Amino acid sequence: MPRLLVLNPNTTASMTRTIGAAARAVAAQGTEILDRNPAMGPASVEGWYDEALCLPGMLQEIARGEAEGVDGHLIACFDDPGLDAARCRATAPVVGCAEAGLHMASLIAGRFAVVTTLSRSVATIEHLAHRYGVAGRCAVRATDIPVLDLEIPGSAAEDRIAGEIDRAIADDRAEAIVLGCAGMADLAGRLSARAGVPVIDGVAAGVKLLEGLAGLGLRTSKAGPYAPPRPKQYAGALAAFAPPAAPGDG
Amino acid sequence: MPRLLVLNPNTTASMTRTIGAAARAVAAQGTEILDRNPAMGPASVEGWYDEALCLPGMLQEIARGEAEGVDGHLIACFDDPGLDAARCRATAPVVGCAEAGLHMASLIAGRFAVVTTLSRSVATIEHLAHRYGVAGRCAVRATDIPVLDLEIPGSAAEDRIAGEIDRAIADDRAEAIVLGCAGMADLAGRLSARAGVPVIDGVAAGVKLLEGLAGLGLRTSKAGPYAPPRPKQYAGALAAFAPPAAPGDG
Amino acid sequence: MPRLLVLNPNTTASMTRTIGAAARAVAAQGTEILDRNPAMGPASVEGWYDEALCLPGMLQEIARGEAEGVDGHLIACFDDPGLDAARCRATAPVVGCAEAGLHMASLIAGRFAVVTTLSRSVATIEHLAHRYGVAGRCAVRATDIPVLDLEIPGSAAEDRIAGEIDRAIADDRAEAIVLGCAGMADLAGRLSARAGVPVIDGVAAGVKLLEGLAGLGLRTSKAGPYAPPRPKQYAGALAAFAPPAAPGDG
Amino acid sequence: MPRLLVLNPNTTASMTRTIGAAARAVAAQGTEILDRNPAMGPASVEGWYDEALCLPGMLQEIARGEAEGVDGHLIACFDDPGLDAARCRATAPVVGCAEAGLHMASLIAGRFAVVTTLSRSVATIEHLAHRYGVAGRCAVRATDIPVLDLEIPGSAAEDRIAGEIDRAIADDRAEAIVLGCAGMADLAGRLSARAGVPVIDGVAAGVKLLEGLAGLGLRTSKAGPYAPPRPKQYAGALAAFAPPAAPGDG
Amino acid sequence: MPRLLVLNPNTTASMTRTIGAAARAVAAQGTEILDRNPAMGPASVEGWYDEALCLPGMLQEIARGEAEGVDGHLIACFDDPGLDAARCRATAPVVGCAEAGLHMASLIAGRFAVVTTLSRSVATIEHLAHRYGVAGRCAVRATDIPVLDLEIPGSAAEDRIAGEIDRAIADDRAEAIVLGCAGMADLAGRLSARAGVPVIDGVAAGVKLLEGLAGLGLRTSKAGPYAPPRPKQYAGALAAFAPPAAPGDG
Amino acid sequence: MPRLLVLNPNTTASMTRTIGAAARAVAAQGTEILDRNPAMGPASVEGWYDEALCLPGMLQEIARGEAEGVDGHLIACFDDPGLDAARCRATAPVVGCAEAGLHMASLIAGRFAVVTTLSRSVATIEHLAHRYGVAGRCAVRATDIPVLDLEIPGSAAEDRIAGEIDRAIADDRAEAIVLGCAGMADLAGRLSARAGVPVIDGVAAGVKLLEGLAGLGLRTSKAGPYAPPRPKQYAGALAAFAPPAAPGDG
Repeated sequence: MPRLLVLNPNTTASMTRTIGAAARAVAAQGTEILDRNPAMGPASVEGWYDEALCLPGMLQEIARGEAEGVDGHLIACFDDPGLDAARCRATAPVVGCAEAGLHMASLIAGRFAVVTTLSRSVATIEHLAHRYGVAGRCAVRATDIPVLDLEIPGSAAEDRIAGEIDRAIADDRAEAIVLGCAGMADLAGRLSARAGVPVIDGVAAGVKLLEGLAGLGLRTSKAGPYAPPRPKQYAGALAAFAPPAAPGDG
Repeated sequence: MPRLLVLNPNTTASMTRTIGAAARAVAAQGTEILDRNPAMGPASVEGWYDEALCLPGMLQEIARGEAEGVDGHLIACFDDPGLDAARCRATAPVVGCAEAGLHMASLIAGRFAVVTTLSRSVATIEHLAHRYGVAGRCAVRATDIPVLDLEIPGSAAEDRIAGEIDRAIADDRAEAIVLGCAGMADLAGRLSARAGVPVIDGVAAGVKLLEGLAGLGLRTSKAGPYAPPRPKQYAGALAAFAPPAAPGDG
Repeated sequence: MPRLLVLNPNTTASMTRTIGAAARAVAAQGTEILDRNPAMGPASVEGWYDEALCLPGMLQEIARGEAEGVDGHLIACFDDPGLDAARCRATAPVVGCAEAGLHMASLIAGRFAVVTTLSRSVATIEHLAHRYGVAGRCAVRATDIPVLDLEIPGSAAEDRIAGEIDRAIADDRAEAIVLGCAGMADLAGRLSARAGVPVIDGVAAGVKLLEGLAGLGLRTSKAGPYAPPRPKQYAGALAAFAPPAAPGDG
Repeated sequence: MPRLLVLNPNTTASMTRTIGAAARAVAAQGTEILDRNPAMGPASVEGWYDEALCLPGMLQEIARGEAEGVDGHLIACFDDPGLDAARCRATAPVVGCAEAGLHMASLIAGRFAVVTTLSRSVATIEHLAHRYGVAGRCAVRATDIPVLDLEIPGSAAEDRIAGEIDRAIADDRAEAIVLGCAGMADLAGRLSARAGVPVIDGVAAGVKLLEGLAGLGLRTSKAGPYAPPRPKQYAGALAAFAPPAAPGDG
Repeated sequence: MPRLLVLNPNTTASMTRTIGAAARAVAAQGTEILDRNPAMGPASVEGWYDEALCLPGMLQEIARGEAEGVDGHLIACFDDPGLDAARCRATAPVVGCAEAGLHMASLIAGRFAVVTTLSRSVATIEHLAHRYGVAGRCAVRATDIPVLDLEIPGSAAEDRIAGEIDRAIADDRAEAIVLGCAGMADLAGRLSARAGVPVIDGVAAGVKLLEGLAGLGLRTSKAGPYAPPRPKQYAGALAAFAPPAAPGDG
Repeated sequence: MPRLLVLNPNTTASMTRTIGAAARAVAAQGTEILDRNPAMGPASVEGWYDEALCLPGMLQEIARGEAEGVDGHLIACFDDPGLDAARCRATAPVVGCAEAGLHMASLIAGRFAVVTTLSRSVATIEHLAHRYGVAGRCAVRATDIPVLDLEIPGSAAEDRIAGEIDRAIADDRAEAIVLGCAGMADLAGRLSARAGVPVIDGVAAGVKLLEGLAGLGLRTSKAGPYAPPRPKQYAGALAAFAPPAAPGDG
């Protein structure tokens, strides 16, 4: 049975627990979920600067998971930070939670919408929708809720998300919704009941895709740009990240 | 545990058994696979005329599966015939095997190739690659093997497919391969070993996506064009296909 | 002089007569119009389920037209159902009425809009606009009029269509309108007078394109995927549709 | 019955006669063909500089045709020079011969190729294929024959075009061919017989599209950017081109 | 130090002076600006008809600049008329002012908007945005101010432009603005101060790009379709435009 | 006069000197070039793993440049690593060297090609070509030369690059070449002389674009996702990177 690393790339442990619980809630019997976050980096990922600086901590956890022999890695942040870098570093498959949510949405709806936190994340998610081939059928909407406010009990976050979902259905012809922040992982069920359309959490979707890949014995292809990093020196504080010498470099 | 209808849309029972075996080989413990084919229609689906005429029989089986309460339908033909029509008719989720194979390939490779049977199927598969958002990273190649020749023991089909896979790696920068015919479902393992890159069978991929959707409780959204067919009269030999009166029509 | 099959793919004879009259009204002197509908299938085509099940009856009529030696086939439904299948089956050229209307619009306007019946048809027409290369310049709007209501004398359908045309001009920068249902074929003249922009009926447009192809001696190329269907057995109630053995299969 | 201006935008009268003959050969009974060329400008249109400088003479002829009340204008050069400007100036519909050939090809073939004269024209034709929505299904090939060499009896031009057609079928999966120069208008029949696929001449195609538009009573929409030019002063040698004051400017 | 031809393609000398002043205001020390306009052609370029007829005069000035040995040509009209023709004729680099403004905007903003004069210019600018690869991130808005009204002191033009800029920021998520008419060249500074986002004038942007190209020693490649025009006869009033015989024609 | 930070994101000082020399060779009189590299991170950037881990060191240098009040930042690596993150962190404009080279190429050639080092970089550069809007006119080719081999005197690198340039001209219709690695910055002149087409170095191109932006007074818009990072805690070894509290967050 697969062991999956569910990796929150920010350093807020309470959010890691929310994400881990959401992952476990949908995991198949026998799937083991390792929910972790990096020891260094930003408390939340809100925009490109945070995204760049979550990468060293995140790649450290990917390396640790690899050393432990996990069967898959889920990047549990809707910006899918470092997805390509992680695929180079890992031998197990790696999936991003935007990638997972958008693929699953495309299987059950013609058009859909992402409802995310801050408007500054809209450009990133639009870029991901383009990368994953669903830009023409996916709207992206922001609620202007800071990420860590999702952790505050009793906040108005859920109501604001529900309101934006209603607008997506009315104005974007959305037939399903993808929640655009891993910190919303616990809300999918209630929001789907309120909206009357499927609401997809990318963390849960990612767990199922990784279970599927593991069940098929599929791992990231190393025959192209996801080949292992070429061995070389890394200077200064990052010296420990230098890739080891390895066969099969190209 | 989910019960899944794995529906070969042609009427060749031996191919249905090949497909069913491939589905069962990857199904999670407890997943029940119903492998079926229509009672009427073409012996194989090779081009648009066959595709059009497999639909009535296929939709009959979708309706039967619905009546039995299956948890998902897999259209086990790489043309994904009738996918939209089936989604209108079903309440359980429906996945096509090209759709499944291409989505899974996109998770483990930057670029990939489909290797299919006849060159007349290339245009259809290119259209599907476009629809599923992977056209820019997916080549399509034909082996000019008629579909039913895949059922002949000892044929040269496997060697010809292996040769085309090698060309896809060399000429298309393919990092992974998707087998472009449900009748190839039993070959993925051996071909992957020969080629040294992941080789994906769409039938197996579809089983895992449907297990995932079932595990997430996701079903096709009825809030848009996948709404149930509007009740109306059907004339002549197709009268029995007339959609029943139902609430929620739009 | 050409004989053209104008084929209403639904089984409502009154709509066939409306369509036939519209075709004859624009046909060149000497062009013969055969207006027909299938003996089996749905009373109207509203969504993908109906579309799938109009195909056997439609292909039967295509085959009959071929046997009679017609010079062209027009699929007189704005979903262009079975266009590719018909091109495989026919030797005469085949044109869809969305295809015809959109091509003609592109010759006289930079931007245009389709005004159709039900909102569930919008996705299909958007897909066709994409296929025919005009998606970037074509909006699609629904009036939420069921198809057969167009046949009811004195209904409010015409006013609702006129209102949607006005919105397309104001909001979509539409310079011309294409009527998005073959059942609207008799309305183009009056609606153009009301709106002050060209209003195009796809049935009429299709007749002129087929006359043009006939005049040029052009027929569907059989050098690619429109080659004749490969001979094979068809099982059960569809056995009579089995393609005959023929030379030139690929 | 329609009177159509078939306008060769270069000043080589022998080519105008070739084009006129091709137009008359396909014109419907009763269609009158006015074959003309400008009094000023380049002897052939080979590249963007020639294209720019054929426009004044061409627009002069469009204006003359309008004054005579023609029912349609065909720009008989495969660069479709000045198509938008002509549509502003004319009230009758205007069609380009690349536009016509590419649209007609799209009705009878999934994929096709243009075979043109000089390689410097390839970029222009690729741009037109993009504009007309067929770039994804249309290859463009050059024979490196200067335009006026097509007028030389006994030249090797026809053989070189035939060779390039064969390569398009073999290498580009072309199912039909569009001749990429109005000066090739007399070759379509023989080349089609040699190649075994449909070969389309844009001049002939344009005549049929204009007959079709005339038969439908469709004219260029003036509701957008094809509105008549705003009245204003033109200086110097071009003073006579100044648009007259007119109602309906926007 | 470079000498640059800043070429207003219309014949309104007061606008040429406005444009020239804007160019000089940003030119590097030592850059010499030649601000000119043609002797023949339209008083303003508003739509495709004017655009076609500004070309002879414009190409005459390009030729004159070449004869004088200028180091770059700027086409100072936001339709970028004759850009490709000028590149064929010139050996110095040629830049259009829409091209320049849009490229510069793409370096400092994710999304931006063009605010232009007449709505009939929107289609042209949308086409240019597509050509220059920024269509997906660039909105185009019209103010319905005729071009020459920009020259009237005390007009309401500036306020109307400012209002449209505000709407672009609010409704199009524009992070920067490009002024869509060379006649607005003197307004960028004040409008940027009012709007609080960068406002880019294409004339100024073009001067800097040409200075950059000159500093890099880069000139238009003659290895493809920008090769010099082939020598040939030009008839009638345009005989003097005939390209001279030259080596390196292809 | 502008002071520009030319930032080599890898830690190989000899390459920084090569890049700095290339920048100074084209800088305008009075432009000051600060050539630097990070103190930590990979010795070369070859693929996504290296790219991720050059970011902390690179952003440290961006912050230092900002503190010194530079007028622009050039990311001198053809992967354009961290471009968006740097734009969030900086108030001066930021340009990537692929971005610069591709934009400049688009001004002087219709089609062009990038010639880079390792084949694993091709996917990244293809992605950038897409992002910058030139994918349809830009081929990408690898020479399979490791980045640091470019620093070895007398190596065969230059010949291999020249050979690949010749293939790009012959096979890709490339009219100009962009050198796809900042480490090739000293080779542009000689390679252009050998190939007979313009050869563009992205470092030099970037210097001129930054001089241009500085001359126009343009800085990255802070009105959208390039707004300053939101203030928050950063944990562990990256605590010093935490963005300071600032006004204008969104």
